[in-house]
Amino acid sequence: MVLFGLFAKYDADAMPSGSEDSDYMTTKYPMFQDTHVMIFVGFGFLMTFLKRYGYSAVSVNMLLACFTIEWSIITNGLLSEAFDRDGKFTIGLDQLLSADFSAATVLISMGAMLGKFTPVQYLIMTLIETPVALVIEHHVINTFHVNDVGDSIVVHAFGAYFGLACSKGFASKKQRAHENEGSVYHSDIFAMIGTIFLWVFWPSFNSATAEPADSRQRAVCNTFLSLCACTIVTFLVSQATDRHKKFDMVHIANSTLAGGVAIGTIANVVLHPLHALIVGVIAGFLSVLGFKYITPFLSSRVGIHDTCGVNNLHGMPGVLAGLLSAIFVVIYNPSDYGKSLNSIYPAMQSHSNTEGISAESQAVNQLIGLGMVLVSSITSGLFTGVILRLKIFNQVREKEMYADDDYFDTPADYEFTTQRFVRLQKPLKQQESLST
Amino acid sequence: MVLFGLFAKYDADAMPSGSEDSDYMTTKYPMFQDTHVMIFVGFGFLMTFLKRYGYSAVSVNMLLACFTIEWSIITNGLLSEAFDRDGKFTIGLDQLLSADFSAATVLISMGAMLGKFTPVQYLIMTLIETPVALVIEHHVINTFHVNDVGDSIVVHAFGAYFGLACSKGFASKKQRAHENEGSVYHSDIFAMIGTIFLWVFWPSFNSATAEPADSRQRAVCNTFLSLCACTIVTFLVSQATDRHKKFDMVHIANSTLAGGVAIGTIANVVLHPLHALIVGVIAGFLSVLGFKYITPFLSSRVGIHDTCGVNNLHGMPGVLAGLLSAIFVVIYNPSDYGKSLNSIYPAMQSHSNTEGISAESQAVNQLIGLGMVLVSSITSGLFTGVILRLKIFNQVREKEMYADDDYFDTPADYEFTTQRFVRLQKPLKQQESLST
Amino acid sequence: MVLFGLFAKYDADAMPSGSEDSDYMTTKYPMFQDTHVMIFVGFGFLMTFLKRYGYSAVSVNMLLACFTIEWSIITNGLLSEAFDRDGKFTIGLDQLLSADFSAATVLISMGAMLGKFTPVQYLIMTLIETPVALVIEHHVINTFHVNDVGDSIVVHAFGAYFGLACSKGFASKKQRAHENEGSVYHSDIFAMIGTIFLWVFWPSFNSATAEPADSRQRAVCNTFLSLCACTIVTFLVSQATDRHKKFDMVHIANSTLAGGVAIGTIANVVLHPLHALIVGVIAGFLSVLGFKYITPFLSSRVGIHDTCGVNNLHGMPGVLAGLLSAIFVVIYNPSDYGKSLNSIYPAMQSHSNTEGISAESQAVNQLIGLGMVLVSSITSGLFTGVILRLKIFNQVREKEMYADDDYFDTPADYEFTTQRFVRLQKPLKQQESLST
Repeated sequence: MVLFGLFAKYDADAMPSGSEDSDYMTTKYPMFQDTHVMIFVGFGFLMTFLKRYGYSAVSVNMLLACFTIEWSIITNGLLSEAFDRDGKFTIGLDQLLSADFSAATVLISMGAMLGKFTPVQYLIMTLIETPVALVIEHHVINTFHVNDVGDSIVVHAFGAYFGLACSKGFASKKQRAHENEGSVYHSDIFAMIGTIFLWVFWPSFNSATAEPADSRQRAVCNTFLSLCACTIVTFLVSQATDRHKKFDMVHIANSTLAGGVAIGTIANVVLHPLHALIVGVIAGFLSVLGFKYITPFLSSRVGIHDTCGVNNLHGMPGVLAGLLSAIFVVIYNPSDYGKSLNSIYPAMQSHSNTEGISAESQAVNQLIGLGMVLVSSITSGLFTGVILRLKIFNQVREKEMYADDDYFDTPADYEFTTQRFVRLQKPLKQQESLST
Repeated sequence: MVLFGLFAKYDADAMPSGSEDSDYMTTKYPMFQDTHVMIFVGFGFLMTFLKRYGYSAVSVNMLLACFTIEWSIITNGLLSEAFDRDGKFTIGLDQLLSADFSAATVLISMGAMLGKFTPVQYLIMTLIETPVALVIEHHVINTFHVNDVGDSIVVHAFGAYFGLACSKGFASKKQRAHENEGSVYHSDIFAMIGTIFLWVFWPSFNSATAEPADSRQRAVCNTFLSLCACTIVTFLVSQATDRHKKFDMVHIANSTLAGGVAIGTIANVVLHPLHALIVGVIAGFLSVLGFKYITPFLSSRVGIHDTCGVNNLHGMPGVLAGLLSAIFVVIYNPSDYGKSLNSIYPAMQSHSNTEGISAESQAVNQLIGLGMVLVSSITSGLFTGVILRLKIFNQVREKEMYADDDYFDTPADYEFTTQRFVRLQKPLKQQESLST
Repeated sequence: MVLFGLFAKYDADAMPSGSEDSDYMTTKYPMFQDTHVMIFVGFGFLMTFLKRYGYSAVSVNMLLACFTIEWSIITNGLLSEAFDRDGKFTIGLDQLLSADFSAATVLISMGAMLGKFTPVQYLIMTLIETPVALVIEHHVINTFHVNDVGDSIVVHAFGAYFGLACSKGFASKKQRAHENEGSVYHSDIFAMIGTIFLWVFWPSFNSATAEPADSRQRAVCNTFLSLCACTIVTFLVSQATDRHKKFDMVHIANSTLAGGVAIGTIANVVLHPLHALIVGVIAGFLSVLGFKYITPFLSSRVGIHDTCGVNNLHGMPGVLAGLLSAIFVVIYNPSDYGKSLNSIYPAMQSHSNTEGISAESQAVNQLIGLGMVLVSSITSGLFTGVILRLKIFNQVREKEMYADDDYFDTPADYEFTTQRFVRLQKPLKQQESLST
């Protein structure tokens, strides 16, 4: 942990740029703030659903996000052209925004490992994951010119499969079917705070880096429509797959968001509202069925325990986004984008002396990008999980998995609110009948 | 429910417009997002106050809002000029914003019916209400040129009286004085999340469609002042009317917002801050007295059960807004608005060859608009309520009214958290005296 | 209370200005809304951490904020040049923003007195504090040309020391170590809603009045970096100072924000990211150590009971901000600011016929400003505390300190949720062993 002090100092090489014009601040700042809310409020509260892990969820979320933000600013700075040129890098709103995206990557991985790591282990995970994710993203975007406007490939898919691989590397039997792994009535409502803020601001997440304005508006509208369709499908499928035809709060809190991930990569690409709706519908299906059948299967058969179900919310929809991005680049006519083609698929733009690549090559590039992300995230995640399993790290005690008590001063009612009343159900019922 | 898939496809006729300029996105987007937060966070959490209905409140709120948004985009699209002309309609930020407003209408009606419908019944209600509300709004705004910038008439009054009429049509004795209809300590605090987000973003709601900039700023300031005045009055009246001089959380969670509704129609009209304050004061009075005397009266004598008290938060303040809009058009001098007159009262603007209508005619138009909304909302609401009462629809079981248990997988503590401890109060007291 | 009606009418002298241009609304409005969220959501929920005082925290927060906003608009209006000139003052977005800042001052003082005043006493406190704070601010900013962009001196330090002095004046033994003064598991999570919204929007708070755009971007980035550094340090120090190496939620909910206060005054001044990080680190240290050692000391030895620990979150970091502002004005070269110097240190700008003051004089001015704020806040706070202790005011009953029950209708579970289960821990354990 003490290492942090050293790294932070690298920032000294930087100087905030003073040349941004006023319009820029005006246009970008509200979208930056929306994203910022998603990271801290959205992810933070989404993870409070565990009955005994509420303090850790919001707090560790905050700690990791801050740590990642600084770590990401440094890494990104070292990768930047400006640093190459004169040994200094610039910090501005753009850098903070991209640091927020990095934080999302780490928080998604944290979701898979929720309740199984100590705070120090989370920090070490971050230390490894952030630079790998950023270097891969750098190559995917700058070498292969992949369009990933909502970062579904480089953030969501990367974060999810890093987390799942880490979980596999770190797996042990005692993590499964633990009595602390469940919610209470109010903890699920706290989680809905996170869900709804994520839901509401997702259009900003997907459009924050979209340029120019018409492309940004398209990103907002597509994300919005995809989320709406996904939400409705989530309710339908959640009810249809339940034995008693009830809804499941886990699906509602998570799968409703899958539409935002699935449309992410192509939010600025899709030109027909119907396509956005269809993407949302597929994402909703995939995500609820994932929670219902794939997560239990992974946990019991493959040994991949996924506390928050990030595979269903970020993983599969992220891969879907990658695949769709390869399909959509072929089926739409590039000339439909007019001048914005240059910012959507820069490699396809013809310049005075070089001709742009074909739509098919761009599609292949999109798939290469997706492949690189999957391979690198799984490899580095597995490595991280195995490392952190070593005895040299303090491990969470089995009894205190998915629980705050070892890491937080808890108030007097903690034990009662989160555990005892469940055991009490029977004796209380007896008392009642006696006293009435 | 399956019908939905068909309707959504109509959107295929649309294509997002790419011609919006950059300024537009910048100016509108933050206000759109604020409104979006109000619909999903604000309305969603405001309705979590029922102790056993928290899951349903946030979830069904989300489902209905999404459903209404898509349904409203389609309806509005079919009503639009562009569709008339070439059989396609455009989806952009403006359409999404107006869909959010439609969602508000439905969610207000949902407030009156909270805990009494099954999810399917809510969807059918939406299916009927949305097109009626939009067609009426279309006529009120375009035929009678009514100024209703904050949509207090066409959204708040319509939603409230549709809901109340529906409640009348659907009324049955067992809905009243049900033991589940009440709050617990933490559910009221959850509701305050909704209240405060609504309160904070209300100025954006009332000014989102105000044009030009000076009119928008006026809408913001008037709404802000009206809300402040209303909040203070709510506390005063709530305490004054209580036997033990205590505040009532129901008033604080709801009546503090009445100022935003009451100023809605005239937010861009009012030129003197004092008038905005007075509107707030009247709204606060009306709303608290409504909760205290009118809601119980309606429930026990008239047979209109109003779970959230939408009559007091949206209904009466909405009618007040309509009446005030007729008064203010007469008492202010139209020339005070300068160039913005055209966007406030387009019918009053003189053009090269036609003269604008007089202030008195505009006032009459405002009243006609209000009347149309009241008549249409009550008629269609009553019709909906009677239809949904038919045996062909599954009905909520009496025991599970205002409760989640029939529609959600609930965690182990649900029964205890939401019900049993109330019954336990006495035996626990005895134990305590024994054990100390 | 009735007095309010009279004051509000002064507003009648005003007329909203219609001349603001469109850009202005666009740039300012989102920042205004962010600040607005901080006041109502942030401060409101931050204070819900007390287990029995949740209703009061959010409600009285709302009441006081509204009251202060109106009172501050009037006071500021009377102090304005426009009022001097023609007996009327203008209300626009700027005035509302500055009213929100005033509300922050009062809510900080409320934090120190949380649970010890009746609503009427809070209102009287507001009545005294607001005009004093505004007159002092007026002199500090306009006479001494102090740069205090994030209002750390005139809002945070003033509010905190007013509150602490008031607490001293109002002190009585029974306020200390009261059994109601503590949290339950879910009340701390509610408080985190407040914390995170404050954290997320703090960059807007510090940059809302920064001009021009480059200065505003600097304010955003510095605040952001300072908060991140402060958060990480808070976790480290919180763990390091705990006997069992656990984190303390009180520190996490409060000290993580100290970085925003400490950078406030100099948010537009700091040119090196490293300096912003260092400020955050110092603030985090100071704040956690304050909670750990200074607050208990003040309470037991000096007789200053500080319910929310505002000394650690607003007081000491505010003074730190003042001291740093004097240091930074000297160590940076004024010419580095280019054209923005005029808006940062207007007194230092050379004009055609007068030369600007030196950096040293500006530094002295900053210290004079800080001194004025401390002296005036402590004097007026002490006075207020002593006055409010008089028997003519109803006082909170000892048993109902830090509790809602005397001021709110509480639901059936209130007693149980907030108190009884603590006492029950032992008998429940016995039952359990019996029944299993």
